[in-house]
Amino acid sequence: MTEYRRLRVALLGAGAVGSQVAALLRKHGDELADRAGAALDLVGIAVRDLDAPRDTDLPRELLTTDPEPLIVGADIVIELMGGIEPARTHILAAINSGADVVTANKALLATHGPEIFEAADQVGASVYYEAAAAGAIPIIRPLRDSLAGDRVQRIMGIVNGTTNYILDRMDREGSEFSDVLADAQALGYAEADPTADVEGYDAAQKAAILASLAFHTAVPLDGVHREGITSVDKQMMDAARHAGYVIKLLAVCERLTGADGESISVRVYPALIPREHPLASVHGANNAVFVQAEAAGDLMFYGAGAGGVQTASAVLGDIVSAARRHIAGGVGVGESTRANLPVVPIGRVTTRYQITLEVDDEPGVLATVAGILSEGRVSIATVEQTVIRESNGEPGVARIVIGTHKAVEQDLSETVDRLAASGVVERVVSVLRVEGN
Amino acid sequence: MTEYRRLRVALLGAGAVGSQVAALLRKHGDELADRAGAALDLVGIAVRDLDAPRDTDLPRELLTTDPEPLIVGADIVIELMGGIEPARTHILAAINSGADVVTANKALLATHGPEIFEAADQVGASVYYEAAAAGAIPIIRPLRDSLAGDRVQRIMGIVNGTTNYILDRMDREGSEFSDVLADAQALGYAEADPTADVEGYDAAQKAAILASLAFHTAVPLDGVHREGITSVDKQMMDAARHAGYVIKLLAVCERLTGADGESISVRVYPALIPREHPLASVHGANNAVFVQAEAAGDLMFYGAGAGGVQTASAVLGDIVSAARRHIAGGVGVGESTRANLPVVPIGRVTTRYQITLEVDDEPGVLATVAGILSEGRVSIATVEQTVIRESNGEPGVARIVIGTHKAVEQDLSETVDRLAASGVVERVVSVLRVEGN
Ligand SMILES: NC(=O)c1ccc[n+]([C@@H]2O[C@H](COP(=O)([O-])OP(=O)(O)OC[C@H]3O[C@@H](n4cnc5c(N)ncnc54)[C@H](OP(=O)(O)O)[C@@H]3O)[C@@H](O)[C@H]2O)c1
Ligand SMILES: NC(=O)c1ccc[n+]([C@@H]2O[C@H](COP(=O)([O-])OP(=O)(O)OC[C@H]3O[C@@H](n4cnc5c(N)ncnc54)[C@H](OP(=O)(O)O)[C@@H]3O)[C@@H](O)[C@H]2O)c1
Repeated sequence: MTEYRRLRVALLGAGAVGSQVAALLRKHGDELADRAGAALDLVGIAVRDLDAPRDTDLPRELLTTDPEPLIVGADIVIELMGGIEPARTHILAAINSGADVVTANKALLATHGPEIFEAADQVGASVYYEAAAAGAIPIIRPLRDSLAGDRVQRIMGIVNGTTNYILDRMDREGSEFSDVLADAQALGYAEADPTADVEGYDAAQKAAILASLAFHTAVPLDGVHREGITSVDKQMMDAARHAGYVIKLLAVCERLTGADGESISVRVYPALIPREHPLASVHGANNAVFVQAEAAGDLMFYGAGAGGVQTASAVLGDIVSAARRHIAGGVGVGESTRANLPVVPIGRVTTRYQITLEVDDEPGVLATVAGILSEGRVSIATVEQTVIRESNGEPGVARIVIGTHKAVEQDLSETVDRLAASGVVERVVSVLRVEGN
Repeated sequence: MTEYRRLRVALLGAGAVGSQVAALLRKHGDELADRAGAALDLVGIAVRDLDAPRDTDLPRELLTTDPEPLIVGADIVIELMGGIEPARTHILAAINSGADVVTANKALLATHGPEIFEAADQVGASVYYEAAAAGAIPIIRPLRDSLAGDRVQRIMGIVNGTTNYILDRMDREGSEFSDVLADAQALGYAEADPTADVEGYDAAQKAAILASLAFHTAVPLDGVHREGITSVDKQMMDAARHAGYVIKLLAVCERLTGADGESISVRVYPALIPREHPLASVHGANNAVFVQAEAAGDLMFYGAGAGGVQTASAVLGDIVSAARRHIAGGVGVGESTRANLPVVPIGRVTTRYQITLEVDDEPGVLATVAGILSEGRVSIATVEQTVIRESNGEPGVARIVIGTHKAVEQDLSETVDRLAASGVVERVVSVLRVEGN
């Protein structure tokens, strides 16, 4: 047995992720020491309630409700409490007392990332967060290191397992959102309060983290346009399937090139993607991040985006990296934000759209609709019109599904407003962006 | 503009990959400097022929046929010549003169990796090789760093673009191997001498590199069992499709647990994988690496496994990493081979098999076949028998397709020999391993 230098590791939180991290640290201690070149001594675990049941067996004497003494003197502090406070205060204290930090806290990084990275920079500490963007999927190192010599053009991520599970079941079973949500809650795929997932808040936090890394720009959370999946219904799913698409909640991070230089757009919304796109075959609660880079071309990273033990894998990789660096010194993993590109509002983004309308089934209606689109600078790529109620006495009703060429979001939404007010449109059934080709 | 420390970068080779690396270094110099924290000065490019045509525009004055002077005094040496010598000598010289090394040379690493990593270790230099295992796909850092706290159980990789292109077209078009190969050569997807690709040598080199990293064990190239795709024909493809499989050339790296401890198996062969497996949808010349880890579960990394500019992306990522480390010092990227697991021969490996036989269509034949299998410790999971020639005077012929449960390769191959010699079997049509479930 090699005699290694010993590092003091403090763990804050022993919930879904933290309890697995503690168990793996203890189970594979010798192997981890060989890989890190240092023995990792778990010196204590901070929790709220000493008597709460835990997912794994943890020695009672390691638990404490008082994090401060653990942090003082630790070489590596692992924050797995979640939420903004007290996580932020503990992380800043750890950095300032000379520790390296490992965290999976996307909510904190998406809102206070710059403050934390700045504090780490000041003292030469490192902050590792492989688990914060896509759970177990290695995406932070590929973006930060492997693609450091390339230029990322676009990221499209399925980064929320709950919503992918719901949309995938709606697609496969033809079920309604509310039924699948209830079932997902019963099965533990969705929380009792599903807001963070189904309204896209969780995905927006991850999008901010991914875009910051990919574009070397600090992206504030309020620069991320966010729409959830609660408006996606069976009818939209069926129509998407019919047209060769599937609906996924996508986090899109895009580099834009205009006359006045480069800018970026970061947005989360349900979008149509073609069935043959690699992202279309991401099923269940799985996640995937599709990256397009100037030189590398198309890359995809696939795996479990959540789950206690899966996420613990990414946290442990970070602990080994922190340990290697802590003993050998050298390059911290600070954030490069030198590109500092402007983040454009959603109104200036261009994508393709699919607009579904119910209209009076009368002569001239399609011409009116087409005229409004053309006035609004929205160019039509495909149109499909189907009679859904024959006229019998009352006027009939037809459905028009319009696929557009790329259009500016602002133009598109004004045009849809004008369609709705045109008199010939009974109902705007849905407006969906089309991504992925 | 920040004033950066300047690093001297020497490039050896300006072929498919090297010419793109040189072009990107020059095109994105400022951006790369921001990311690396150092200015990268390309001080020279070694080639064989000063007058050879190049894929990109390179200043004539940078070219030289004399690598030695470039290497002396370089901070980073990029080896993109390929082959064993003089690449090996130049890399060792670079290491010993204090440079960090970036290479994409799988042939060299798979044969002389330990010598090179040992030399780098001695002087505290780093050797980066993200491009050597799967071209543009970031797989080295994920295995070495992101999964450093986890235990890889299994890797299944499609790591050769040429063979995937050929097999994919055979599958989609129902064409014969030789026709698709000829076409692939005409289109530039296969070399004039396709041996390295179609016989699995290239994939075996990559398998040795991936297994070494994943299992922290130096895997010699002759520890890799290798079979190519030249025996795969239209009939096997059709039968695979009929049974819900597709045939892919897989590099399988597996951790085995036995009574006498752990060992590993590394092998390259064409195998059946179920259509619904994520690897089945890797089309054309694309590559993908599917990783199963104890905690992380299933992960997949997908992208371009070759191509000059795509591979250059991975090389540039390594250059930025080398530059960061060169100025900040710290953790080298040595190889951890501390686990040092034994590599078992193919005979001791267990997989499932699909055996296709042509037999006399007579009563009792299936019983004889089943008896031989059972004596040979090969247990049958599924059998399908089809008459392919009715008996009319002469005895008829039937095809039997047997799916086995997991069996030991040694048992299986002895059993197949006994089947062939049994008198009732006219012909062993094919024996294929089944991977992926
Ligand atoms: N779960 C996942 O699949 C997943 C995936 C990716 C990222 N993450 C991130 O990982 C982090 C942890 O998630 P989780 O699911 O493990 O959370 P969790 O199950 O809610 O666990 C939180 C843990 O922190 C402790 N804690 C909370 N506030 C505390 C305080 N003020 N003082 C001391 N201890 C406190 C809790 O103690 P008690 O047990 O005593 O209440 C609990 O052990 C979050 O940032 C989350 O976003 C989670
Ligand atoms: N091509 C890919 O898609 C790919 C993908 C992954 C990894 N790789 C690896 O990357 C490396 C380079 O591949 P490549 O496709 O770029 O090779 P290549 O096109 O054959 O280029 C080799 C270059 O090295 C130069 N060279 C060869 N021997 C030399 C010597 N003795 N002295 C000076 N210069 C010498 C050649 O000079 P001249 O031009 O004057 O002949 C040429 O510029 C190989 O290790 C390969 O396995 C390639």
